[in-house]
Amino acid sequence: MAEPDEFREAREKGLGRILALSDGVFAFALTLLVLDLVVPALAPNQGVSVLPGLLAGEWSGFFNYFLSFAMIAVWWNNHQRFFEYVKGYDGSLKALNLLTLLTITLIPFFTKLLDAWIASPVAVSLYAVNQGATGTFLALTWRYITKDHRFIEGRLDQKAVNRMRITSTIPPLVFFLSIPLAYAGFFFLSTPQVAWIIWYAIFPISYFVRRKYDR
Amino acid sequence: MAEPDEFREAREKGLGRILALSDGVFAFALTLLVLDLVVPALAPNQGVSVLPGLLAGEWSGFFNYFLSFAMIAVWWNNHQRFFEYVKGYDGSLKALNLLTLLTITLIPFFTKLLDAWIASPVAVSLYAVNQGATGTFLALTWRYITKDHRFIEGRLDQKAVNRMRITSTIPPLVFFLSIPLAYAGFFFLSTPQVAWIIWYAIFPISYFVRRKYDR
Amino acid sequence: MAEPDEFREAREKGLGRILALSDGVFAFALTLLVLDLVVPALAPNQGVSVLPGLLAGEWSGFFNYFLSFAMIAVWWNNHQRFFEYVKGYDGSLKALNLLTLLTITLIPFFTKLLDAWIASPVAVSLYAVNQGATGTFLALTWRYITKDHRFIEGRLDQKAVNRMRITSTIPPLVFFLSIPLAYAGFFFLSTPQVAWIIWYAIFPISYFVRRKYDR
Amino acid sequence: MAEPDEFREAREKGLGRILALSDGVFAFALTLLVLDLVVPALAPNQGVSVLPGLLAGEWSGFFNYFLSFAMIAVWWNNHQRFFEYVKGYDGSLKALNLLTLLTITLIPFFTKLLDAWIASPVAVSLYAVNQGATGTFLALTWRYITKDHRFIEGRLDQKAVNRMRITSTIPPLVFFLSIPLAYAGFFFLSTPQVAWIIWYAIFPISYFVRRKYDR
Repeated sequence: MAEPDEFREAREKGLGRILALSDGVFAFALTLLVLDLVVPALAPNQGVSVLPGLLAGEWSGFFNYFLSFAMIAVWWNNHQRFFEYVKGYDGSLKALNLLTLLTITLIPFFTKLLDAWIASPVAVSLYAVNQGATGTFLALTWRYITKDHRFIEGRLDQKAVNRMRITSTIPPLVFFLSIPLAYAGFFFLSTPQVAWIIWYAIFPISYFVRRKYDR
Repeated sequence: MAEPDEFREAREKGLGRILALSDGVFAFALTLLVLDLVVPALAPNQGVSVLPGLLAGEWSGFFNYFLSFAMIAVWWNNHQRFFEYVKGYDGSLKALNLLTLLTITLIPFFTKLLDAWIASPVAVSLYAVNQGATGTFLALTWRYITKDHRFIEGRLDQKAVNRMRITSTIPPLVFFLSIPLAYAGFFFLSTPQVAWIIWYAIFPISYFVRRKYDR
Repeated sequence: MAEPDEFREAREKGLGRILALSDGVFAFALTLLVLDLVVPALAPNQGVSVLPGLLAGEWSGFFNYFLSFAMIAVWWNNHQRFFEYVKGYDGSLKALNLLTLLTITLIPFFTKLLDAWIASPVAVSLYAVNQGATGTFLALTWRYITKDHRFIEGRLDQKAVNRMRITSTIPPLVFFLSIPLAYAGFFFLSTPQVAWIIWYAIFPISYFVRRKYDR
Repeated sequence: MAEPDEFREAREKGLGRILALSDGVFAFALTLLVLDLVVPALAPNQGVSVLPGLLAGEWSGFFNYFLSFAMIAVWWNNHQRFFEYVKGYDGSLKALNLLTLLTITLIPFFTKLLDAWIASPVAVSLYAVNQGATGTFLALTWRYITKDHRFIEGRLDQKAVNRMRITSTIPPLVFFLSIPLAYAGFFFLSTPQVAWIIWYAIFPISYFVRRKYDR
């Protein structure tokens, strides 16, 4: 099992680049979201006093901005926690990580779609599907890493591993469950925006589940 | 207190990723600002000799560009100085850091808003609120890190810690103080742009305070 | 041949920066692709139920998005595998790497060109030339690194080196071969899109070749 | 002179972040340039066969793209070579580095200006001033680092230091010299584009100077 030092070094360098690419994609996705926020145009014959009204009219854009920023932050936080104890990798882990990054880069697009089609249950569902996919890929990443302690070298105890398996399943589950809710809201209340309520529930739910399991 | 080597390694790796994400966001925000600078269009029947006049007409855009670039540089400089001696982290420090990054990513948006609504005290105030929030989150970060020498392992003496607490409070304070000034300027001089004068005062004030305390 | 420690350190730091620049460009190119995806506009007098139809009409845009994302991922994967064992560099390796990055940054442009001119064999060919150039520069990079074990310090056996020479030649070859195919498709079937079929063949071909050689 | 290990560590971490921010800015500036390349629009009643003509009509845009990419690569190359042997830093070095990054982020803007106002000696001069400023800040950075071997710990011999002082002065000098040339071209030949010829001379001149001094 003793591994030559130089191969260990190479592997750690390779792992470092996976994290560098990931942090780059997370950082740009976080920053790129801001391009969706529209600066209101000043119409002729209007005074500057109309600005608060124009900005207030964009409230749903700001709302979606904060939601998407918070979700990318949540996914990055999981990614950072998962890879903290990782000591190796293979082609499948790289592929799984690139799939996660694919859905991260799509978040600015689906946020813009949600902004423009706020009343469409299809736009709401597609946003939820993409976020749910990110969460699913991350949960699979953790399962793959910890399967038979493949890449974590037995340092984390099995209880901690299992706890993170459960907590990582909650956010994607919430997003997938929000899809029928969006359709129900659309047909019965003429608005799919009820999905938002359960999306925002991710933050307190995650908090309480983590507290419960951390005891 | 002796910590296994492997856990120490994991923690340093985790910290490295917080810095990598932060540097990515800072670098991207610095570069994204340039998209706000507008290349003047050549109207038909105009010679190229109109270019200097057109560029001069955009002076406030260039002015705001340099201000925002300088401020992101100031915030990055504080962030870099604070984290130089940091040896650990927890979830709250990550959350505080993500809040700082949120306000950093908003700087290009508020710069664009300021460009388009230069005569509106609301646009000036929102720019100041966002910059003030960045400075506040950074000042809180330093307090959180140094509280009971939580994450700095007793290497920095208390005097240096206190000095950085004071100097980190000045820039957000200046931004918050500029808000009533912008309104006063708007009502008495019909222009909120007096706020700029005190914004630019941040650079000499910081310089003198740092000199005084460094003695 | 014994090298002072401090020079070795400097060289590794220099190499680290080549990788940092490369990962930044790869991450940014991956994320920038999303700007090519267009959010459909809601026409007046239309209900939100038209969204699925509008998105379906953009299928080729999504198709090209996934292709370009997958190809940047493939090129990054090769780059990561090549540099894992690299221990030094010179000016020519830096130049070769910058040429690779040049073609990577052009991928979002050629993807947009392909989207807008899907029926033009010229657009299809230019996309293929750029992708083929990326693959060629990467294959040359591997040759340059491994020539007389220049920068890999004899750790990799010659068999592994040769295998990677062969596998790295396949993707650019496929792209260059797709160019006459695009023209044939254009003249005989009035569509250059047959090139796509062979582009997508890169993934299974690479997989089987790698399996065969890994035995 | 003996420095506690922990302070040395902190300083190297701080230096690492300066390089991380710089590489991020260089990488984004390289990638952001591509947004200046315009995909030609297909006019109604036109066949796809017009594409080559439309692309050829944008030749100067591609030309400027390659020039700016090559120059950012040259500046990054100098930056990487300078910092390879650097072992410390202070506030002035950080400030000098941020000024360099400021001019780097402006390159995409001045490239766009050059594209749109190709016949204006003002646009040509502004492009040259910005590039010349980048080169000047980099040359000053090298002087500052090596002054009394301030941050290089006596490892590089004075001859190598002096050689890099000379070679780093050439590119900014060429850019500043191109400004009167652009005006001369404009007044005598009605085109400021003669400046391009001397800009492109940077590459062979640098090559020969380096060869001569490396002997």
